[in-house]
Amino acid sequence: MFTTQFDPRFMETDALGHINNTVIPVWFEEGRTPIFELFVPQLDLSRWNLILASVHVDFLAQTYYGQPVTIETRITRLGGASFDVSQQVVQDGKITARGKAVMVHFDYEANQSAPIPAPIRTALEAHLSPE
Amino acid sequence: MFTTQFDPRFMETDALGHINNTVIPVWFEEGRTPIFELFVPQLDLSRWNLILASVHVDFLAQTYYGQPVTIETRITRLGGASFDVSQQVVQDGKITARGKAVMVHFDYEANQSAPIPAPIRTALEAHLSPE
Amino acid sequence: MFTTQFDPRFMETDALGHINNTVIPVWFEEGRTPIFELFVPQLDLSRWNLILASVHVDFLAQTYYGQPVTIETRITRLGGASFDVSQQVVQDGKITARGKAVMVHFDYEANQSAPIPAPIRTALEAHLSPE
Amino acid sequence: MFTTQFDPRFMETDALGHINNTVIPVWFEEGRTPIFELFVPQLDLSRWNLILASVHVDFLAQTYYGQPVTIETRITRLGGASFDVSQQVVQDGKITARGKAVMVHFDYEANQSAPIPAPIRTALEAHLSPE
Repeated sequence: MFTTQFDPRFMETDALGHINNTVIPVWFEEGRTPIFELFVPQLDLSRWNLILASVHVDFLAQTYYGQPVTIETRITRLGGASFDVSQQVVQDGKITARGKAVMVHFDYEANQSAPIPAPIRTALEAHLSPE
Repeated sequence: MFTTQFDPRFMETDALGHINNTVIPVWFEEGRTPIFELFVPQLDLSRWNLILASVHVDFLAQTYYGQPVTIETRITRLGGASFDVSQQVVQDGKITARGKAVMVHFDYEANQSAPIPAPIRTALEAHLSPE
Repeated sequence: MFTTQFDPRFMETDALGHINNTVIPVWFEEGRTPIFELFVPQLDLSRWNLILASVHVDFLAQTYYGQPVTIETRITRLGGASFDVSQQVVQDGKITARGKAVMVHFDYEANQSAPIPAPIRTALEAHLSPE
Repeated sequence: MFTTQFDPRFMETDALGHINNTVIPVWFEEGRTPIFELFVPQLDLSRWNLILASVHVDFLAQTYYGQPVTIETRITRLGGASFDVSQQVVQDGKITARGKAVMVHFDYEANQSAPIPAPIRTALEAHLSPE
């Protein structure tokens, strides 16, 4: 499991006084950074090789400004070219949102998916925790 | 079906040269505005009575800057307190993303869901198009 | 003068019940789109030739969700390689924010500013309204 | 001086391969959090008493994804009801953006500015470093 902790930003609140729903996919993308680092050496944008196939978020409770959040990120499925990343937002000991991203190893030049290379697969397996 | 058309914003692109994935839930929220208007007279924030239970987005193709997008929004399920909103992004005649939001009629003072009032239900039914 | 009209987005509000201050630079960037189109044929990102030197925003009144805004954009100074863009947000007949962006014609390959080409200069002059 | 360090987010890049200009005001708002904490006990949104009068940003160099940034925040002027906050983005030892925010102690119920209370003034003075 990867964990990322930070404080919600004031501009991430909305008029209902909580964190706006559209912010959670942003936080989840940030929580996937350690996975990006497994695929893309030094996060070099010119060598990017991942694309997102889908995202899902269940909003379980309101998330608030003024208290840190922890994003917990697990790899829960590992396929040939794609894999599932399950994530949740934890604030004050409570899971406030839970979601899943399906990511694909992608060749931007060929504009198509590509098998996950063996060394990366090995690294991902070390973090695999099926649901 | 509700449709909303606008131009992608430059700041919505990312370093891969396309619209970043986290933008699509923002656009879908904007596309649900006509539904917000059925629930909340004059979009008065002090009388807000909706909450989001979940969002799902499938990314089908890259979405680009420089061409308008149309957000198509349908009500595809109508329950007692909740309903499904199915949405898609169309650019240059192509569906680039498709998703679903589950929305709940919500009493923020009681902090719980509430049955959809009959007049709103009637209005929603006029837009219902089950998948 | 260029004008752009749209509705504020729900996610652009913050917990104070108004549009968050960080949204205004986003709207101003959107309001500069007609200027981008003078410099970059078809808004082709691979041929982008503008960079922002500075932005300034004065917040004059609160901007609200639920009513359209108009972004008014004027070119107020035209230099050799740079020019000033003065902009304001108008909502319900009231100027709620006013600002200025200094833009520079930029050669991204050489990583330096470049004189504004004559045909673009002529086009910009047609929109010039010094303060 | 207050300092805040974090990693740029992928979604904060734009198609030019750097951090989009509209992100800097967001980071500067985050960098002002320690100042918010001096005014608003526990960052309680229902007791918020600050408003932004203006922001200015000079973009000095490109800011990139993949390396942490530090936001440096100084109070550089302390008036009766308002004060100036000077801020800069530092990445890899280089100042990439510099700016100033004018903030006002504000009574949201009366909808007008209010003198900065003596205990807060004392706390702010401890951080005052005129330019």
